[in-house]
Amino acid sequence: MGLPKNSGLCLHSRYQSGPKNKISDVAGVTAGHCTIKDGNINTGVTAIFPHQGNIFREKVMAGSAVINGFGKTMGLIQLEELGTIETPIILTNTLSIGTAFTALTRYMLEQNPDIGLTTGTVNCMVAECNDGSLNDIRGLHVEESHVLEALGSACEDFEEGAVGGGTGMCCLGLKGGIGSASRIITADGRQYTIGALVMSNFGAAGRLTIGGVHYDTKNKKSAEKPQEKDQGSIIMIIATDLPLSERQLNRVSRRTAVSLGRTGSYLGNGSGDIAITFTTANKVPHYSDQAILDCRIFHDDKLDMVFEAAVEAVEEAIISSLYHSETTTGRDGRTVTGLQDFLK
Amino acid sequence: MGLPKNSGLCLHSRYQSGPKNKISDVAGVTAGHCTIKDGNINTGVTAIFPHQGNIFREKVMAGSAVINGFGKTMGLIQLEELGTIETPIILTNTLSIGTAFTALTRYMLEQNPDIGLTTGTVNCMVAECNDGSLNDIRGLHVEESHVLEALGSACEDFEEGAVGGGTGMCCLGLKGGIGSASRIITADGRQYTIGALVMSNFGAAGRLTIGGVHYDTKNKKSAEKPQEKDQGSIIMIIATDLPLSERQLNRVSRRTAVSLGRTGSYLGNGSGDIAITFTTANKVPHYSDQAILDCRIFHDDKLDMVFEAAVEAVEEAIISSLYHSETTTGRDGRTVTGLQDFLK
Amino acid sequence: MGLPKNSGLCLHSRYQSGPKNKISDVAGVTAGHCTIKDGNINTGVTAIFPHQGNIFREKVMAGSAVINGFGKTMGLIQLEELGTIETPIILTNTLSIGTAFTALTRYMLEQNPDIGLTTGTVNCMVAECNDGSLNDIRGLHVEESHVLEALGSACEDFEEGAVGGGTGMCCLGLKGGIGSASRIITADGRQYTIGALVMSNFGAAGRLTIGGVHYDTKNKKSAEKPQEKDQGSIIMIIATDLPLSERQLNRVSRRTAVSLGRTGSYLGNGSGDIAITFTTANKVPHYSDQAILDCRIFHDDKLDMVFEAAVEAVEEAIISSLYHSETTTGRDGRTVTGLQDFLK
Amino acid sequence: MGLPKNSGLCLHSRYQSGPKNKISDVAGVTAGHCTIKDGNINTGVTAIFPHQGNIFREKVMAGSAVINGFGKTMGLIQLEELGTIETPIILTNTLSIGTAFTALTRYMLEQNPDIGLTTGTVNCMVAECNDGSLNDIRGLHVEESHVLEALGSACEDFEEGAVGGGTGMCCLGLKGGIGSASRIITADGRQYTIGALVMSNFGAAGRLTIGGVHYDTKNKKSAEKPQEKDQGSIIMIIATDLPLSERQLNRVSRRTAVSLGRTGSYLGNGSGDIAITFTTANKVPHYSDQAILDCRIFHDDKLDMVFEAAVEAVEEAIISSLYHSETTTGRDGRTVTGLQDFLK
Repeated sequence: MGLPKNSGLCLHSRYQSGPKNKISDVAGVTAGHCTIKDGNINTGVTAIFPHQGNIFREKVMAGSAVINGFGKTMGLIQLEELGTIETPIILTNTLSIGTAFTALTRYMLEQNPDIGLTTGTVNCMVAECNDGSLNDIRGLHVEESHVLEALGSACEDFEEGAVGGGTGMCCLGLKGGIGSASRIITADGRQYTIGALVMSNFGAAGRLTIGGVHYDTKNKKSAEKPQEKDQGSIIMIIATDLPLSERQLNRVSRRTAVSLGRTGSYLGNGSGDIAITFTTANKVPHYSDQAILDCRIFHDDKLDMVFEAAVEAVEEAIISSLYHSETTTGRDGRTVTGLQDFLK
Repeated sequence: MGLPKNSGLCLHSRYQSGPKNKISDVAGVTAGHCTIKDGNINTGVTAIFPHQGNIFREKVMAGSAVINGFGKTMGLIQLEELGTIETPIILTNTLSIGTAFTALTRYMLEQNPDIGLTTGTVNCMVAECNDGSLNDIRGLHVEESHVLEALGSACEDFEEGAVGGGTGMCCLGLKGGIGSASRIITADGRQYTIGALVMSNFGAAGRLTIGGVHYDTKNKKSAEKPQEKDQGSIIMIIATDLPLSERQLNRVSRRTAVSLGRTGSYLGNGSGDIAITFTTANKVPHYSDQAILDCRIFHDDKLDMVFEAAVEAVEEAIISSLYHSETTTGRDGRTVTGLQDFLK
Repeated sequence: MGLPKNSGLCLHSRYQSGPKNKISDVAGVTAGHCTIKDGNINTGVTAIFPHQGNIFREKVMAGSAVINGFGKTMGLIQLEELGTIETPIILTNTLSIGTAFTALTRYMLEQNPDIGLTTGTVNCMVAECNDGSLNDIRGLHVEESHVLEALGSACEDFEEGAVGGGTGMCCLGLKGGIGSASRIITADGRQYTIGALVMSNFGAAGRLTIGGVHYDTKNKKSAEKPQEKDQGSIIMIIATDLPLSERQLNRVSRRTAVSLGRTGSYLGNGSGDIAITFTTANKVPHYSDQAILDCRIFHDDKLDMVFEAAVEAVEEAIISSLYHSETTTGRDGRTVTGLQDFLK
Repeated sequence: MGLPKNSGLCLHSRYQSGPKNKISDVAGVTAGHCTIKDGNINTGVTAIFPHQGNIFREKVMAGSAVINGFGKTMGLIQLEELGTIETPIILTNTLSIGTAFTALTRYMLEQNPDIGLTTGTVNCMVAECNDGSLNDIRGLHVEESHVLEALGSACEDFEEGAVGGGTGMCCLGLKGGIGSASRIITADGRQYTIGALVMSNFGAAGRLTIGGVHYDTKNKKSAEKPQEKDQGSIIMIIATDLPLSERQLNRVSRRTAVSLGRTGSYLGNGSGDIAITFTTANKVPHYSDQAILDCRIFHDDKLDMVFEAAVEAVEEAIISSLYHSETTTGRDGRTVTGLQDFLK
């Protein structure tokens, strides 16, 4: 739902939000969470579906950008080579991506009896941030069933805040988590949507910036252990129904560096800042008798509005992830303040 | 000299400037201009020297980042492969880089009788922005002698504003040009400097942001023909005396996307946004009997201050380029307002 | 014409050549030369036209690969960002690319009165190798008129060997130069063409390999001054009428490393090994009212034949460049043996 | 042990092998296998140790190259950003990398109580090829204990052939597997070693090339189901004790495209061809009080011998992987011929 109108915060946006102000404003895109909380355990899994059909058989064109590569995201190499995503995207904590990969693999194998038998393998997309501040990350508490639960709960009206993969995340000295937002643009007289979903865990305390206003999260006494360094990562998923090419989807992904800069990041050394952008237009069939297929492309000269709308959607998704994340007490009694409590 | 203290503008910096607040605070670095103005002609050349010795024989380690590649900078391919710069860096208008290349080649040949005879060729660095709004760029008015004049006039106390390569540039709806700034950091108890010099020509009208405050340059009536698109490019040169590796110099270069975001860019489609970072530590000899040489490297874990200081230096250099550029009337009587006049 | 059937040399090809066995088997592609020979001067210019219309107004989709980046090719940054070529491609010696750029700029300005006035600038493609072994490269003997002569002489039946940009080049211890070849593949029941044109100047003496057979070019007494290092560069231009995407054109370009390996290169430190691939299908208009355009794409699963045919075409173009280059005496009386003389 | 002298096969090498002709000729490097064979199950795990100390606390400088990215290797993003490897490298089948990641994570956590608690997380390196031709890959038969067994069995005199991660691999129409070789070069009067270990699973039937000689593996009747496409991937690990920078280690990695070309690959669409190169010189401490550290670098001008020796070592490792792999019957009774049986 993005940042509510009555939040008292303003982002100087130039483009309108979609009706849900979420990534699910792009038709067919859904997300689901599994939240795992138990004392020192504060972690979880978020799953994003690019569309509601068989994703392996109808891949979505995609691009990516490694804004800063202190991260372990799986699946980017093949995404870059082939320009497609062929599974749901899983977000979880850094040390649990092996478990998430195996769970997602089993899920894909079950749905596709041909994988690894009569056709090749599958490229599972799994991204991560380090929630070790609030979560006993060494305990590897994410199990395969948690991943299936996140996959099974996907819907258009998913929650934002300290849920799913965002349960234990911290961001800019406050509680981070899952955030989402969307923007509408018009091309050739038709409306198109650009949606974003982020798992925010980046930024140094004291750098939070909202609509150009600086907030000194460092000196707030409720932030007991402020992060002095910009570390921890952010995963930024952008979806659109515009027929962008893989090259253009890479270009959109690279614009997220501006969104990060607007919210207070200087792209810290220890941050895995990864952007993935996909389009639901121009799906790519796994099997095709034809070598040559029809598709549509977008003229680069008209991309400015797409870039600016994407920057805005990711910026608002970040601030929304903070806004919807409640003050959380986690590992060893450590408490991290939520933005709404901070602003009080 | 960066942004003066009495400018009434504030950038929320965390690091101190060096004594000159210019790229020349890095010992050995100088810059020079040749300004070409005559009616419809508003263009010029800026030259940057990485050090005062023979640059071909003692190369500087360097890295780069193509933030957006709608640009024609020469020399980046070899810079990326070999991690060095071996000539002064020339900045001029887009269509004059051929002339600048030839002039710089002759300059290097004269100083180095071995090039192309008993050793290989030389990799000339020439970068550009499109000053066609204010300059008769089709006239190719830059001559080889102008390049030599810029090279010959290099000094520590070079001018900022609408001079040299910046003479005809426009930025964020106002007059752009040459700007410079510096920051000081401390490592292992010693002070090091990070300096920036930019030639600013990017950004859409109405997006200018200074220290988080938005300025509506679009509705200012003195800006007769505001740029509706983010186009035109920026060249960002960063110098340091820290012993960074080529990989780290690339990493610093990539942080300039944050500086651009802070000043109001969303990395527009039509902009050639290029960053080049070099270090005056760890010079690389052209000739070496030894295969293995001693050097020093910087621990990545300590890079956060370098990244943040570089972001600040480039941000201030951009705003400084606007601050020092006077309102200029150029091609076909077109007038572009300078920031100081705009703020009045 | 590639390698003649009666050459006594065999390359183990799997795909048929086109009727001309040249890059001009791709409909619309032409090339022209200007050869400059006078005592110590052995250099020149080659121009390649992607099609016969206005290339700036109807750009061709393109990709590239920097196999080894000890090179100075101009225009690659924008090619990679936008995925298009909008000028003829010029090949010449390393120190003359400034002159070639200026000449090509004037040529484009004359044909397009809008460039730099009512629309943006133009991205001139100029590639180079170092012909300093046989040519007085320090003399900068290429003039703008030579570039125009090469542009003006373009035709389908261009010459191969020690002509144009290849006049002074050396390769694998023998005389290098311009070579070309083509291959035909079938997709969806229709024939498509993959053509290659190279300017060869790479490789260490003693490594020449033709169809798996090694030739010891080092001990041949006519090669007076064999290159001990793999240095000097190769420019590889690939054209096709297959509707490949920019991503796929990059992938094809990267396969040229195999062609280089097959002919005896280990991708030496000092070599600028650059590949550029374009398609004449899916042209991109400079001006478009529509944001969204129709196009066709090729299924990646069918790319193997394209990759293998491209590897073969470039391999044959390299060997053909040697085969057609005559023994040449150049700078300071230095003689480099042609392949036909070497084989005698 | 590489290719035995009495194999009857010749690779035209210019550099001498080390005493073991294995990657373990680089002091400190070891490898271990766990082979899993049971009817339809033909898979396993190989582990490579860059040195014998605590790899997390003393990281090795590393570079990489994605020659073709149809692959799922984990850890490359951070390797590229930070230029280091901080765990052993695990090789296994494509669908088992999640399990391998989790096992390697637990192994690292046990050895390093600080990871995820008082310091950041760890970047586990896990690479893969698809052994689905001979292995029931859908069964996910690799267990965490298998990974620990491979780690525990690491030694200098590891086996080559159809063992460990190579158990079920196929290559160029024959049985693939694990192969290794080394080369010795001399710099500044001292000997240095370049070692390679590959897991080979690439190439189309009918393309095998050994020392320039083509072998028609396609028509051999014992190869019951020849691969018509170049698919399946190869992982190439290169080790050296030369003090190369991360940039140079990337450059070495890119040369493996030549090794692949020499053995018969055209870099097929469906192949994940990944190279990783590390140096045991210039180790990078995880913890450092000093920001600036001493190190040594190698002059690029002397790299040619390193490049050529690396190309040779990888080429021989590939042929050695074929030579030592026995004819194997796997899933559904499918038999793939070993090179020695093929040559008979």
